[in-house]
Amino acid sequence: MSLETISLNTSYEGTQGVYRHASRETKTAMTFSVYVPPHRANAKLPVIYYLSGLTCTHANVTEKGEFRRACAELGMVFVAPDTSPRGEGVPDDPAGAYDFGLGAGFYVDATQPPFAENYRMWSYVTEELPELIAGHFPVDATRQSILGHSMGGHGALTIALRHPKRYRAASAFSPIVAPSQVPWGIKALGGYLGGARASWRGHDTIALIEDGARFSEFLVDYGDADQFLTEQLRPELLQQACTQANIPLTLRRHAGYDHSYYFISTFMDDHIRWHAARLAA
Amino acid sequence: MSLETISLNTSYEGTQGVYRHASRETKTAMTFSVYVPPHRANAKLPVIYYLSGLTCTHANVTEKGEFRRACAELGMVFVAPDTSPRGEGVPDDPAGAYDFGLGAGFYVDATQPPFAENYRMWSYVTEELPELIAGHFPVDATRQSILGHSMGGHGALTIALRHPKRYRAASAFSPIVAPSQVPWGIKALGGYLGGARASWRGHDTIALIEDGARFSEFLVDYGDADQFLTEQLRPELLQQACTQANIPLTLRRHAGYDHSYYFISTFMDDHIRWHAARLAA
Repeated sequence: MSLETISLNTSYEGTQGVYRHASRETKTAMTFSVYVPPHRANAKLPVIYYLSGLTCTHANVTEKGEFRRACAELGMVFVAPDTSPRGEGVPDDPAGAYDFGLGAGFYVDATQPPFAENYRMWSYVTEELPELIAGHFPVDATRQSILGHSMGGHGALTIALRHPKRYRAASAFSPIVAPSQVPWGIKALGGYLGGARASWRGHDTIALIEDGARFSEFLVDYGDADQFLTEQLRPELLQQACTQANIPLTLRRHAGYDHSYYFISTFMDDHIRWHAARLAA
Repeated sequence: MSLETISLNTSYEGTQGVYRHASRETKTAMTFSVYVPPHRANAKLPVIYYLSGLTCTHANVTEKGEFRRACAELGMVFVAPDTSPRGEGVPDDPAGAYDFGLGAGFYVDATQPPFAENYRMWSYVTEELPELIAGHFPVDATRQSILGHSMGGHGALTIALRHPKRYRAASAFSPIVAPSQVPWGIKALGGYLGGARASWRGHDTIALIEDGARFSEFLVDYGDADQFLTEQLRPELLQQACTQANIPLTLRRHAGYDHSYYFISTFMDDHIRWHAARLAA
């Protein structure tokens, strides 16, 4: 597997890179960013995967996420993939909507035509990308964790629940926790996985917990001024599910904050430190 | 003077706003951003003005500058104007180049047609904008300071040298210090001010110091991997001028850093703290 370097910038004494490679999963070129903090030669560092929300590429969190200061201080690698396959041949939402198709892969392996060929973000994020990162960057693959925002929070929580030994920590900003029950999720899971709702349960945090999946603990932050809170995010469902399943959940509601990176960047430092503590253990 | 609010987002317990108003100086609509940190009712806060570089609007530093954490902690208002007048009727570089016209006002009041009508960024930044800020935000107008990047570093240093009592601190990232001697500056000052080079001296940091202008002290950071370092920025000229004039200068050369916001954001915290100490005195 070869990597093309798109850009490299020194930042906080480490290196912020953007890379492109030919993905075996999506059968497209995929772009991602990696921040490597300052480190000793031959060091193997813990790695945090960050999954972005609808409409985003790797660039949103890379430019606006304010994660580098804490990653540099704590010695954490930070990886941010794209949110879908891209390119002229990749099928998109028929109406060009923002919440399906390009920029909206929902971190599933699609089973439905015409999406099944390229939309394999589950396998890309859980298999191909970690292999690539382990092969090209100074990481300790036994110490990885995952976080995400909105659609990416959905990705982080579902991936953690289905791979509880592979990820040592999982957290989210403003996640979609019950895609089977909300408009964004019903559209996406129906479109990528088809109408048989049983197949959706493996990509729904609440359904996964109901079906017995467990994770050590979650940290979830959201803002009470989030415009998507009551219709799409529904954090109260996560609270109920975690309480019933005895999954420790730190769920924080922040007054005045919305769905934007102005919110995420405010609490990114907390999340990085929370992950670092669990990756060091 | 009335302000239109374009956006308001809670961040670091304060408020990041973007505003638009009809400018008397530029005779156009002007957009700027203001971060107001958390504060007590009726508090009057110190204010930092940030001037951006070529091609930027208010948005670049607002999204990528990583200034809010320190401003929130220290109680500083942070104001970021645009870099030129904008709009269909505003004359631009005849060839559409990035280094003159729209996005490249160079913080001067143009005297040459067709630019003299709208390109009045000096008066906008030093007069109109502070009046507007004082009228609409909780600031102490006796405690203001200025910093900038590249073309905006040029703006910050020249404004400080010509208004040493109005600004309590001035610093810069990768500033253009001798526009009369470098390609960007020769094109811009010639285009806005005309061919009589005597008129350029009031907008050239080195010439201003040679002509007797003084400021209490400067902090300047730059990267040794900056692609514009030797042709456009020439920090060694600032070092020489400050040494000869006995102006205290903290000039820091950073190995591996370039001209980007990955560099600026790394050292923004230092600059905010440096300004805060001088604004508190």
